[in-house]
Amino acid sequence: MSANLYDFAYDLEKGIRESNEYVELKQLIEAVNHDDIAKKMFDHFRELQLQLQQKQMMGHQITQEEIDHAQKQLLQVQQHPTISKLMEAEQRLSLLFGELNKIIMKPLEELYGLPKAK
Amino acid sequence: MSANLYDFAYDLEKGIRESNEYVELKQLIEAVNHDDIAKKMFDHFRELQLQLQQKQMMGHQITQEEIDHAQKQLLQVQQHPTISKLMEAEQRLSLLFGELNKIIMKPLEELYGLPKAK
Repeated sequence: MSANLYDFAYDLEKGIRESNEYVELKQLIEAVNHDDIAKKMFDHFRELQLQLQQKQMMGHQITQEEIDHAQKQLLQVQQHPTISKLMEAEQRLSLLFGELNKIIMKPLEELYGLPKAK
Repeated sequence: MSANLYDFAYDLEKGIRESNEYVELKQLIEAVNHDDIAKKMFDHFRELQLQLQQKQMMGHQITQEEIDHAQKQLLQVQQHPTISKLMEAEQRLSLLFGELNKIIMKPLEELYGLPKAK
């Protein structure tokens, strides 16, 4: 039974790898990684995003100035066609993972919504 | 292609529902829900846990007093045999979900670890 369950997970993993969403994003990441300027811009932006996220997670307030700066940086990196496509592809893959997760987590949600009376 | 992917997710969902870990937890939740005293104890403990988690997520410090109180409550609910079994079953299902998640998220991890040079 349990072995079967892992087979299902591996099938899903394989399906993800072969999905258009995944293949496209992979190609775009490789393209950015092979373009020095794009790579530097993108890494810099990701670093900034990460810093803000960490600040937020630690319960610190993010200032308006920081928001403005991050938004300016976002507009700038989006000017780069490959990075812009990469970000769109990330969103599509993220949506896909969201939908898959919803399906897989459904049994768990149902557990805690079990009615008291049968 | 994409339809296939959803089929894999639904297979996995079905596998989770049929797993020993899931079936056992479901039965234990039903048992607790049908036992007024156990239900009250468990709900009270969950409420306390949730409050502490929310406090933590909002960046507030949790006091030593609150930790001591939560631990005392935990020891108390664990005295109840059904609740104690339920908590163990939750941990087993949580481990299972952790392992399944690791498999499914692997393609994503690999994407961002792609080497620059081929």
